[in-house]
Amino acid sequence: MASSTGDRSQAVRHGLRAKVLTLDGMNPRVRRVEYAVRGPIVQRALELEQELRQVIRANIGDAQAMGQRPITFLRQVLALCVNPDLLSSPNFPDDAKKRAERILQACGGHSLGAYSVSSGIQLIREDVARYIERRDGGIPADPNNVFLSTGASDAIVTVLKLLVAGEGHTRTGVLIPIPQYPLYSATLAELGAVQVDYYLDEERAWALDVAELHRALGQARDHCRPRALCVINPGNPTGQVQTRECIEAVIRFAFEERLFLLADEVYQDNVYAAGSQFHSFKKVLMEMGPPYAGQQELASFHSTSKGYMGECGFRGGYVEVVNMDAAVQQQMLKLMSVRLCPPVPGQALLDLVVSPPAPTDPSFAQFQAEKQAVLAELAAKAKLTEQVFNEAPGISCNPVQGAMYSFPRVQLPPRAVERAQELGLAPDMFFCLRLLEETGICVVPGSGFGQREGTYHFRMTILPPLEKLRLLLEKLSRFHAKFTLEYS
Amino acid sequence: MASSTGDRSQAVRHGLRAKVLTLDGMNPRVRRVEYAVRGPIVQRALELEQELRQVIRANIGDAQAMGQRPITFLRQVLALCVNPDLLSSPNFPDDAKKRAERILQACGGHSLGAYSVSSGIQLIREDVARYIERRDGGIPADPNNVFLSTGASDAIVTVLKLLVAGEGHTRTGVLIPIPQYPLYSATLAELGAVQVDYYLDEERAWALDVAELHRALGQARDHCRPRALCVINPGNPTGQVQTRECIEAVIRFAFEERLFLLADEVYQDNVYAAGSQFHSFKKVLMEMGPPYAGQQELASFHSTSKGYMGECGFRGGYVEVVNMDAAVQQQMLKLMSVRLCPPVPGQALLDLVVSPPAPTDPSFAQFQAEKQAVLAELAAKAKLTEQVFNEAPGISCNPVQGAMYSFPRVQLPPRAVERAQELGLAPDMFFCLRLLEETGICVVPGSGFGQREGTYHFRMTILPPLEKLRLLLEKLSRFHAKFTLEYS
Repeated sequence: MASSTGDRSQAVRHGLRAKVLTLDGMNPRVRRVEYAVRGPIVQRALELEQELRQVIRANIGDAQAMGQRPITFLRQVLALCVNPDLLSSPNFPDDAKKRAERILQACGGHSLGAYSVSSGIQLIREDVARYIERRDGGIPADPNNVFLSTGASDAIVTVLKLLVAGEGHTRTGVLIPIPQYPLYSATLAELGAVQVDYYLDEERAWALDVAELHRALGQARDHCRPRALCVINPGNPTGQVQTRECIEAVIRFAFEERLFLLADEVYQDNVYAAGSQFHSFKKVLMEMGPPYAGQQELASFHSTSKGYMGECGFRGGYVEVVNMDAAVQQQMLKLMSVRLCPPVPGQALLDLVVSPPAPTDPSFAQFQAEKQAVLAELAAKAKLTEQVFNEAPGISCNPVQGAMYSFPRVQLPPRAVERAQELGLAPDMFFCLRLLEETGICVVPGSGFGQREGTYHFRMTILPPLEKLRLLLEKLSRFHAKFTLEYS
Repeated sequence: MASSTGDRSQAVRHGLRAKVLTLDGMNPRVRRVEYAVRGPIVQRALELEQELRQVIRANIGDAQAMGQRPITFLRQVLALCVNPDLLSSPNFPDDAKKRAERILQACGGHSLGAYSVSSGIQLIREDVARYIERRDGGIPADPNNVFLSTGASDAIVTVLKLLVAGEGHTRTGVLIPIPQYPLYSATLAELGAVQVDYYLDEERAWALDVAELHRALGQARDHCRPRALCVINPGNPTGQVQTRECIEAVIRFAFEERLFLLADEVYQDNVYAAGSQFHSFKKVLMEMGPPYAGQQELASFHSTSKGYMGECGFRGGYVEVVNMDAAVQQQMLKLMSVRLCPPVPGQALLDLVVSPPAPTDPSFAQFQAEKQAVLAELAAKAKLTEQVFNEAPGISCNPVQGAMYSFPRVQLPPRAVERAQELGLAPDMFFCLRLLEETGICVVPGSGFGQREGTYHFRMTILPPLEKLRLLLEKLSRFHAKFTLEYS
């Protein structure tokens, strides 16, 4: 700290002494954590808002903050669960009441206010298992392998925690995609594990190439012990949807190299591109048969925060583990039990997401219409984003096949790069900060997700309403042109 | 693993190979974690329930699971927040509607479904600060020092994470009371910090003695670097309420020995004994004036799970930090941001708990009546518990001055102790397992919380309804007599 000597002498004058807990003395792993999605650029956005400047928060996948309305059925059932006096009200459809009663029956004291068991309410674990079976064309799922969580993040951190062991050259290494969602880098830093980067191929629409996995693994084995491979599909921030062939190749690689697989599949409902389809790692693994199906260890994560419902605030999620050692699974449950249980309203919401109204239910038509409207608009926004960015000189954008973000590449003039370096900023951070200051648009620099040296990107959600998004994309493209001119 | 050779040969026969992630190869710190409140005895209770045996879960402070009804006002406002269509219904009081509208205005997109900022909704942080000021007789609280959390546990873990540093003899040591709430021991094990035990004095109603703090600290300095002191007041599992003099002495000790103070004050509304009163560490610290008030670092934790509301399932809580280094506080916020935000319904609930209806509000009378009824019944149950246990030969129980548990001491006959040792069980675990099998009563052995060598205890909540509690206490006392006879 540059100012620590000055601080200290001032402290002495005021009869103060040094803090017990200082930046220098605190947990060094926590200091190393970085989380760009809510990093300095978002702090600056907050300051601007406090000065009453209008800010468009395109930095985070937060559908309802962008004006998306909650799905009526979900909120009706939840309100009934929260306040069961409403069960006698004529203003709720019968199926919503039945669903609320069913959930409350499964809660301690028939109330959302009781703790659940640490793995989540058993009935909801069963409903999740049946959802997975339907999704995967009937391949069985065991409720005892499903663990509910506080959003997907919580479950991802828990599984990573289990994997971390060793010291020095035997320290656990974990392969993560670059660009990545920074929960992974942040968690590995905090746990003291080694982050092993494999690069997605921007030239091939951010495809995952097994040759690149081999390269990354080979290099990593010099200095750590790689034990796990993380895949994000559909991709965040990159929006690609993996082909079935790619998933098979990844599974074969993980099996041959003895890597535990973590499949972050929170965007499984968010697939837009013609020809793209979501294939779960679980389904592909099971269909590959022996020796893979019965042995490859896999954890697959899902969430209530994304999809068509976008219920981020409720912090609902789950992990399904496949082929996990039974004793390790017990240890995982023990670890979860220290935090008591995931939020019960989030568990209830997850139940509704995994078992929505059936065609014969009174709420079906409205539910289906609302769901389809959201997904159709998202598809249109994905298309529009790609189109507008690719028309802008100096910006190129892969198709947004799925998820909720574009991750366009921007050309930055050498003088802008030099100016950023003078300011001690990553060049794309410099670009994004200027963008924020001049237009109020808040996006996250590519350096927060990782990117190939010398390339620059940013992540922007496609979530704003269609016409607003169009204006935003045009404004951003114009700013880029102006910025390029300024530094040419 | 005794059977691993057998497993392996079987695996080879089936063409299987060892798992990537095994009990032997997993994170050794996670393996060391123990959490008795949901440990083996609760697993066994679950099995019995699955065999349709009736189990009385007196192991955990879960009011609503024990039949306590939620406070009407809290659930009305929450239902309105979850389903704002209800704002036009005539069936909700005006003040509940106003409160719901006020909370929704402060949410992204006016919805509980949006993420909040990582420190929690600003309006709610402000309401918490005003609550602290009222509680502490006007001593100022800064909303920027208040961080909302996923229950108190989450915030406690976050603060402990900041403190862990060093290796070998410089490893962070943290003083915790014995008996303790096992979140502390579990978290320190997971973080690889050194647990430093100080014993509460059972002979003086579990009082905290500063001489004992000195002893514990002195011994610890031989093998680690003690940096923090945890206090639980009112005590869990021990139920004592600290006197103002005791708190002052603890603060002086922490200041002189340069220890960061963690005050677990989640039972601040749960004080029953005549003559006992809750004093917050923050208030006492501020009233002590210089040099303590402006310098001693303190984190104080509170929760929506306990008190009169018992809303465990919503996972609401907060920490107030006092005199924390500004740069460290920034690091704490960064760490919280990786998990995005605490559950928003829990944040909303916390807002209602810290700013309940005012005397002029339409909901005041009912709110007040419900709150007082719960607290009065808890006081009666605390008294009853002490009384019944102390009438039983071989059981002695300190007054339950506060919190939600009794922690009685039980005499176990030497032959029972021997039998337990033959079975590889802690003697009080043996007692509690037998109790569970024979009576269906599930309580947690004292060994899960820590106790003086050669003494045996269990923790039991006082939460069952009064008449049910009486039967429970009598049944337990009779079982103890029978058990004693059996092994004499």
